[in-house]
Amino acid sequence: MVRFTKMEGLGNDYIFIDNFAERLPEEEFPVLARAVSDRHFGVGADGLIVILPPTEPGFDLRFRMFNADGSEGEMCGNGMRSFARLAFERGLVRKTRIRVQTLAGPVVPEIVLDEAGRVQGVRVDMGPPRLRSTEIPLTGPERGPVLAETVEAAGESFTFAAVSMGNPHIVIFTDADLDRIDLAHVGPALEHHPLFPQRTNVHFVRPEGPGELRMRTWERGSGITLACGTGACAALVAASLTGRSGRTADVHLPGGTLRVEWAEDGHVYQTGPANEVCRGEFTRDWRREAAARS
Amino acid sequence: MVRFTKMEGLGNDYIFIDNFAERLPEEEFPVLARAVSDRHFGVGADGLIVILPPTEPGFDLRFRMFNADGSEGEMCGNGMRSFARLAFERGLVRKTRIRVQTLAGPVVPEIVLDEAGRVQGVRVDMGPPRLRSTEIPLTGPERGPVLAETVEAAGESFTFAAVSMGNPHIVIFTDADLDRIDLAHVGPALEHHPLFPQRTNVHFVRPEGPGELRMRTWERGSGITLACGTGACAALVAASLTGRSGRTADVHLPGGTLRVEWAEDGHVYQTGPANEVCRGEFTRDWRREAAARS
Repeated sequence: MVRFTKMEGLGNDYIFIDNFAERLPEEEFPVLARAVSDRHFGVGADGLIVILPPTEPGFDLRFRMFNADGSEGEMCGNGMRSFARLAFERGLVRKTRIRVQTLAGPVVPEIVLDEAGRVQGVRVDMGPPRLRSTEIPLTGPERGPVLAETVEAAGESFTFAAVSMGNPHIVIFTDADLDRIDLAHVGPALEHHPLFPQRTNVHFVRPEGPGELRMRTWERGSGITLACGTGACAALVAASLTGRSGRTADVHLPGGTLRVEWAEDGHVYQTGPANEVCRGEFTRDWRREAAARS
Repeated sequence: MVRFTKMEGLGNDYIFIDNFAERLPEEEFPVLARAVSDRHFGVGADGLIVILPPTEPGFDLRFRMFNADGSEGEMCGNGMRSFARLAFERGLVRKTRIRVQTLAGPVVPEIVLDEAGRVQGVRVDMGPPRLRSTEIPLTGPERGPVLAETVEAAGESFTFAAVSMGNPHIVIFTDADLDRIDLAHVGPALEHHPLFPQRTNVHFVRPEGPGELRMRTWERGSGITLACGTGACAALVAASLTGRSGRTADVHLPGGTLRVEWAEDGHVYQTGPANEVCRGEFTRDWRREAAARS
């Protein structure tokens, strides 16, 4: 029996374990992640996130994240917001700005409270964008920021801006109804185009007045998803550089809305929701079942 | 906040609410079913099943079942096993054979205990098979039981037996490796063939020695599923009538194994697993969220 909380941010859902209380051996996390994430035989989630004591000085907490297949992930913006909210609300930390140890390095989420002291959202530093074409990377010689290059795919011609947020994104601005874009068809054709040697995330973005962007995403390796946090950052950066937006915008994704700000320090910050879904006890005999299978 | 238990039988998973304790108004069930069944924003399940006091004499409990879209279902063999086990283990009933009021009429599940008094499985009366061709229904004149008729679909020829368990099934026996059958291709072609005016469930069944059947299913309206309880009954009846099995067999489905027995009373009984996954509190503010959407 393991106590858990299920949280979601923009529909990206994780099972959280407070390992200060549960004290599970770390080598069990991959097996537990597979069992608890299974949508039919487990609670069901995109993965497992464990709240741990830090192993290095200067951190408040340590974050470990496992995908539903048991593989370890480095970081996830949606998961980090839920992590910070849960740790704060359960009293594992007493301050609103916490320093978290992750495999991707230090991350500093900040709880945003309203006047009544209730959690309104969580703000996460997503780092600086990278704009040099060979950094994103695009095939061919270094040609500086790519803001309106054209690519042919799936029998159509697309004009895109390219932004890396540690992972590659292309942003295609459009005034069309986003629901009419055949993302399942054009998404994979663009993702696998030879112009993108590490493949790419693909975003169709519609500016909707000052400070409002709406987007739909084809996520590299995952297909159509409810929300791509780094993609929302890339969309704001591309919109800002091409005069379609200021340095701050509300970005509407199918799973909900993120406020994205490209701050004076050059970093992109996103503020978004994190919600508790349920809490309880995982009562399945997952250790015995896993042993029986192996 | 609503207390719940998630149970699964052969991977068919439901959220259970004990309404003796929760006392939710029945008109809230469809909204709660949608919220709690959502795989990303809710706990995640195929639907919601509520344990209620009966409204008619002669019953121990009442069963109401709602699909993930909020529509009400009549009955589900996998869900009924979980219902019976949970009601028994939580002490809502004190006997192993209970009479349950459902929209499909009375159902009498029976808890099967091992020598130590632990729940081994649950046995459910699935009623008698119907074999007359116009009852199943097949197009064309009444021609009695159909045990080896041929149909052309997706460029291939299939020999099938037809059985109704209240819903239509065709059973195609094969000695081939079931994993090599392109079910996503031939399933829908057979489901929608004009020979089946109410469409049909499609099962490929491989006899594996006496008393052992293995099957894969294309479920009418749902596609490839982990387990189809009425389909397992249809497979056993067809195997028994064509000399491929006795009156009892273990039927192996992708989600697990059902023991199916075509008893002397003409009814088909199936015994199978029902497992608790987790229990807890659904803490999402689903009432407010539903009100905000409408």
